[in-house]
Amino acid sequence: MREVAVVGIGETKFGSLPDRSLRDLVNEAGNKAIIDSGLPKEKIQALYVGNFNSSYLCGQSHMGALVSEELSLGNIPTLRVENACVSGGLAFRMGMMMVAAGVYDYVLVGGVEKMTHRETEVVTSALASAADSEFETTLGATFPSLFAMIANRYMYEFKSPREHLAMVAVQNHDNALLNPDAQMHKKITVEKALTGFPVASPFTLYDCSLITDGAVFAVITTSEIAKSLNQKRPLVEVVGSGHAGDSIQLALKKSLTTFSATVDAAKQAYDMARLSPEDIDFAEVHDCFTITQIINTEDLGFFEKGLGGKAVEQGLTSIEGKLPINPSGGLKAKGHPIGATGLSQIYEVTLQLRGEAGERQLKNVEIGLAHNIGGTAASCSVHILRRR
Amino acid sequence: MREVAVVGIGETKFGSLPDRSLRDLVNEAGNKAIIDSGLPKEKIQALYVGNFNSSYLCGQSHMGALVSEELSLGNIPTLRVENACVSGGLAFRMGMMMVAAGVYDYVLVGGVEKMTHRETEVVTSALASAADSEFETTLGATFPSLFAMIANRYMYEFKSPREHLAMVAVQNHDNALLNPDAQMHKKITVEKALTGFPVASPFTLYDCSLITDGAVFAVITTSEIAKSLNQKRPLVEVVGSGHAGDSIQLALKKSLTTFSATVDAAKQAYDMARLSPEDIDFAEVHDCFTITQIINTEDLGFFEKGLGGKAVEQGLTSIEGKLPINPSGGLKAKGHPIGATGLSQIYEVTLQLRGEAGERQLKNVEIGLAHNIGGTAASCSVHILRRR
Repeated sequence: MREVAVVGIGETKFGSLPDRSLRDLVNEAGNKAIIDSGLPKEKIQALYVGNFNSSYLCGQSHMGALVSEELSLGNIPTLRVENACVSGGLAFRMGMMMVAAGVYDYVLVGGVEKMTHRETEVVTSALASAADSEFETTLGATFPSLFAMIANRYMYEFKSPREHLAMVAVQNHDNALLNPDAQMHKKITVEKALTGFPVASPFTLYDCSLITDGAVFAVITTSEIAKSLNQKRPLVEVVGSGHAGDSIQLALKKSLTTFSATVDAAKQAYDMARLSPEDIDFAEVHDCFTITQIINTEDLGFFEKGLGGKAVEQGLTSIEGKLPINPSGGLKAKGHPIGATGLSQIYEVTLQLRGEAGERQLKNVEIGLAHNIGGTAASCSVHILRRR
Repeated sequence: MREVAVVGIGETKFGSLPDRSLRDLVNEAGNKAIIDSGLPKEKIQALYVGNFNSSYLCGQSHMGALVSEELSLGNIPTLRVENACVSGGLAFRMGMMMVAAGVYDYVLVGGVEKMTHRETEVVTSALASAADSEFETTLGATFPSLFAMIANRYMYEFKSPREHLAMVAVQNHDNALLNPDAQMHKKITVEKALTGFPVASPFTLYDCSLITDGAVFAVITTSEIAKSLNQKRPLVEVVGSGHAGDSIQLALKKSLTTFSATVDAAKQAYDMARLSPEDIDFAEVHDCFTITQIINTEDLGFFEKGLGGKAVEQGLTSIEGKLPINPSGGLKAKGHPIGATGLSQIYEVTLQLRGEAGERQLKNVEIGLAHNIGGTAASCSVHILRRR
């Protein structure tokens, strides 16, 4: 397999963008990524698009073909991939693998979701289709309720205080304040997070990620070609990639407090990169709910099981800390345009490694990790990027 | 890249199956394919599922995870791919590429669609989402009307008689009579096809493919491993694969009577296989409408432009002919469970090459081709399989 690099990135502002269509989002982020790469558009040989549910939310399937047409990419092969909230992470993996395998030299990968134009109950239905429709959704389960059960179990097993969840929200809101693309620019306190509008006990509104419009794209090529481009910036290589699965039903999981898909995908990525969790300088970690971030940071090997919340309390995961988590603001505060989320993590990691992250730029970072899950961690991708 | 073989296949009966759920279909076809391979389930390392629009039709996205759980495949990585009607063909390509590239040794690929439980107008909406929602669907275009325009243009350009379209329908109905899995078991005549219920001029009901429930799966491994399995049947290798695209909007295509995505994908597959159209013994060709089959058989290089209909009239494409097309009955008469269709073509080609096609078994076939398009040929996959 050939070595692979990210040579172009582009994203839209995230948020409720009533005056911007699916096409507008694609157009902006896609063209930004291609322009950022410095490559002529004609070089792009294939396109992989992560999109969760425009079929239902926008009456638009076949997103690969739509994106290609909107970006005037000519008659290139396209593919939409969908694995719930890890659609973007897996679009990235497929594109990266096709370059690594030598099938293509230049691939555009992207993710997009347009959600805020629909009523909340329609969006809730669309999101619930990522769970098991027969054994979960039709019985009334939605993702806030499923992850609330996980949170309750976690707090019971590890005698972890409710406040730790709130601290995740506070930290991600703080980070988003420094990210101009973030949906949420609002400082909150632990007290405010704890007393927010109740969603599903123990969660308040502040424990839940956002409903967001947005798109993110990236251009992938081989490291060899990337070097020849003489870009006036550090080279960002993809040194590790993992993809794992678990049961779609929460009831069938072996544990509610360890996400085996995260553990497995991380192991693959670490092995491929010949790195261990201690080598990671910072990470974008899937935080659809506050508890998700805590559990995932443990399953990625960053903290001992049961101590993910304590790490937040101690400031270890802040942008000034030992291992910054979600400098972008995460799904919680940057926003969660489902199909774009995994690419948005790649965007942030690449930006940080290049040293182009502005006010939220981390110091001395060489290796970053992007972690994305779908459903109640029924699917997971992990990518490790390294500055050369 | 490593050489790849299809070592297991399974499909359900196609049709309106009101007593069978999405899960039932997956369970039957998936387990049949695995059993057919003779491999223990634990060997399967990854799963790629083609599914067009269960998000809308069944409230079920995240089909990779659902299929894996239903088939008890354990915690393997899964991915749903969607490119309208070529979702199945591209699930096959992704699985095949991942084995060829050495990422996995054993991959399960499948396609499934459950459609007939919804009202016709809901299914029409779901299908229309494969076109451009902004510039086609919302203006009233549906696929029958789009392909009817193509048919009218074709008949105008090549002075091709309306009867040729009807002859495609008659032939595919004839073939389906010999296929126990086919949805349609009904002999028709040219006269009947011409005078059927009008859909979009020139199409009658008999020019249109069916709304179908069904699932098809296949097990892929390397040719080297396949040989070591000592299966008591000929080895079926995947010797060529192509994937191409074109504009999603019909209005932006350079030609209405040549599908450039078919031409491009076929060229890739022929080049990879070091074969030419003359080497192909038979083919499963995408026939969502009768005109689609005619144009595609020309674009695949089987017949001169404008003579695809004449070839049907002359009997060249019948199962007794020089180049049998759609011995399965095709989308027209076997049925068109969208996400499963591309896999169903692979199923038929594999079965024929093994010599296991029963009453419709073709004589002396060594090389077969499977051709699958999405939308108005905005996406296309072509695969060439060879008996060794």
